[in-house]
Amino acid sequence: MEFLAVLLILLIATRFCGEIATRLGQPVMVGELLAGVAIGALAQQFTAAVPALLIGAHDNSLRHVIDLAICFLMLLAGIEMRPREIADASGTSLAVALGGVAVPMALGVALGWLSLPESPVKLVQCLFLGTALSITAVPVAIKILMDLGALHTRTGEVIVSAAIFDDIFGLALLATLTAFMRTGELPGVDGLVLLGANVLLFFAVVTVMGLYVFPWAGRVSKRLQEPEGALGLLLIAALSYAVLAELLGMHFILGAFAAGLFFGRHTVDPDTYDSVRLKVSGITSGFMAPIFFASIGLRVDLSAAIHVPVFTAVLIGAAMLGKLVGAGLPAFWCGLKPREAACVGAGMSVRGAVELIVADVALEAGLFALPDPPPPVVAHLFSAVVLMAMVTTIVAPMFLRWGMRGVARSPQGP
Amino acid sequence: MEFLAVLLILLIATRFCGEIATRLGQPVMVGELLAGVAIGALAQQFTAAVPALLIGAHDNSLRHVIDLAICFLMLLAGIEMRPREIADASGTSLAVALGGVAVPMALGVALGWLSLPESPVKLVQCLFLGTALSITAVPVAIKILMDLGALHTRTGEVIVSAAIFDDIFGLALLATLTAFMRTGELPGVDGLVLLGANVLLFFAVVTVMGLYVFPWAGRVSKRLQEPEGALGLLLIAALSYAVLAELLGMHFILGAFAAGLFFGRHTVDPDTYDSVRLKVSGITSGFMAPIFFASIGLRVDLSAAIHVPVFTAVLIGAAMLGKLVGAGLPAFWCGLKPREAACVGAGMSVRGAVELIVADVALEAGLFALPDPPPPVVAHLFSAVVLMAMVTTIVAPMFLRWGMRGVARSPQGP
Repeated sequence: MEFLAVLLILLIATRFCGEIATRLGQPVMVGELLAGVAIGALAQQFTAAVPALLIGAHDNSLRHVIDLAICFLMLLAGIEMRPREIADASGTSLAVALGGVAVPMALGVALGWLSLPESPVKLVQCLFLGTALSITAVPVAIKILMDLGALHTRTGEVIVSAAIFDDIFGLALLATLTAFMRTGELPGVDGLVLLGANVLLFFAVVTVMGLYVFPWAGRVSKRLQEPEGALGLLLIAALSYAVLAELLGMHFILGAFAAGLFFGRHTVDPDTYDSVRLKVSGITSGFMAPIFFASIGLRVDLSAAIHVPVFTAVLIGAAMLGKLVGAGLPAFWCGLKPREAACVGAGMSVRGAVELIVADVALEAGLFALPDPPPPVVAHLFSAVVLMAMVTTIVAPMFLRWGMRGVARSPQGP
Repeated sequence: MEFLAVLLILLIATRFCGEIATRLGQPVMVGELLAGVAIGALAQQFTAAVPALLIGAHDNSLRHVIDLAICFLMLLAGIEMRPREIADASGTSLAVALGGVAVPMALGVALGWLSLPESPVKLVQCLFLGTALSITAVPVAIKILMDLGALHTRTGEVIVSAAIFDDIFGLALLATLTAFMRTGELPGVDGLVLLGANVLLFFAVVTVMGLYVFPWAGRVSKRLQEPEGALGLLLIAALSYAVLAELLGMHFILGAFAAGLFFGRHTVDPDTYDSVRLKVSGITSGFMAPIFFASIGLRVDLSAAIHVPVFTAVLIGAAMLGKLVGAGLPAFWCGLKPREAACVGAGMSVRGAVELIVADVALEAGLFALPDPPPPVVAHLFSAVVLMAMVTTIVAPMFLRWGMRGVARSPQGP
């Protein structure tokens, strides 16, 4: 009963704020996050009147459901990407992608090194900041470009293929980071070799399975007589990859993402593909994503902006500048006009679900609790990163909308 | 990780056994239940090798996810019913429905009274047995009739409309029973009046909302700009009804069911209806239902058949005979041929999700733990009821298939 009441409160608030955000031209995620923040703030004021679950959202009572929500979100993120588009990526995209990862990564590590206190986990915290800055939200970027009718302009295509590359690169970074977070420090040389071997093994297994076993499973699913055979197989693939990733010392989100990545139009017949995609997307957008974003919002303390204002401002600045310079400059060097190159940089600086999931993973791993007791800058690190994700996701589309006005529109693809 | 591994094991086993069951002409639910039973038996043998969650499935670690699964199952059960069909029900259906509830109810209470030990909860246990026997699984019955091409014969129509009535009546019984289970004994006169008033209030609120607010919400959902607006509103309705039911002393499954019942083609435009229905049905059949049925199977101890063989056999006999006589005789009296009347009785004796959810509710309420320590017949009551549901769900379709061979087929409706 209490659990269902909490779900109800979260759903009502997220759907309401999500609708307002959409009408203001913002991604629905922004509204859902703010709904969580508002509920969290209210719950702190009226502790007696609200279910204990809402206040204790950082304990483990909702954890299983949130883990499930993360699995669905990553599976959908994977489905919505086209590995083929990475293969088709031009030299420009590659340069943009590399710059768009390297510069924010360097900025994040440097910012952490200068502002975080000495502790055994300082290096891991710095790497986390770097990873958080280097991720780009592909689905959000695609949505904005589609709204602007600019998905199939040269700028749009560079953004999308570079963003896909960055997201995958960011997740590979997370794979490494997870191993560090578990031990709390950098492993020795043999540990690094083992980790590298595990990461390679994971990607090898997943790629071979994706290229050879998925199409076979797609044909099998057509002959299944039970209801939802194809959806069932996809969920089994997502969960087995998730478990495999964990067994190899990485995080389960990688597995769910990989399963989605290799599920495409070539895996099953088009009708089945559309139907499975519709169901995963429906339950994710309509239920799982709101619950997850609200749960993130619940744990955000907006006072980060008050307690560590300089750090938060610099973090947000680094997030924007890192992508603007790191992705924009290579785009300019590769021949895009200055305005187009700036749009590429802005388009690459939207964050989204993956960003927040990475923050959630770090929070769950206790990365923001050391040194004990944590000084303000560490205690508010989670909130600062979520704030950064929110601000970039709000500002980048505005910039893009303004910048793309001058860029020629092309007709939308099918 | 452990949680995801458990989901993975349950999904693989249920999908595999579900497919086998389907190919053997059995409802997929039977396979999913047996998958749970098999995993439970294996886990008891190899306690060291399996995740602790699987062995401790009766503790609360998976509970939130299972509660969520039950919500989706009941919502879907509601969606798949047509309240209009109850309004159109003939006198025959009404007589069949009443007999189909009254006789099994009486048999269940009598069996309980004769075989259960004296305890403060004996009467509640007897009422639970009666309720368990009086429920009919409408979706299973519809599925079998459709397979036989007999949905729109007179026999088929009588079965479906009577079964819908019985399911709703069974749930109203459960509403009353839940209040008893919470206190452990029958309330006094004022308690009964209060409960009656609460039940009436719930059905009044739900009916008024369903008739007037749902169509309005349907029109609102069309104007929502966020993704999955209609699905979100339906889930909010299901959860608010669920919370309302709990607040009024009933069980949350009633709320989820009621929300589905009033969600129909008239609530939203046909495209939205089909899309929402497809998504709820997909995630329920492909994920939630397998998890729930497996979790029931996990807690079943097939040795009930060995430890209390007479009780289990009599229970199964009462379940079949109760519906055959209680529903079949009125059908015969109302003018159906003996063979048709027998088919009505057999068709009404399939059990399904609702049956198992009621058993789960009683188990969670601790109904099978008193007197302490419980004698074998009480300790194995849960397993005996699940066994009964399994056997009737396997045998009834066989009987129906054999019996309907002589009954004229009519063309399927659209």
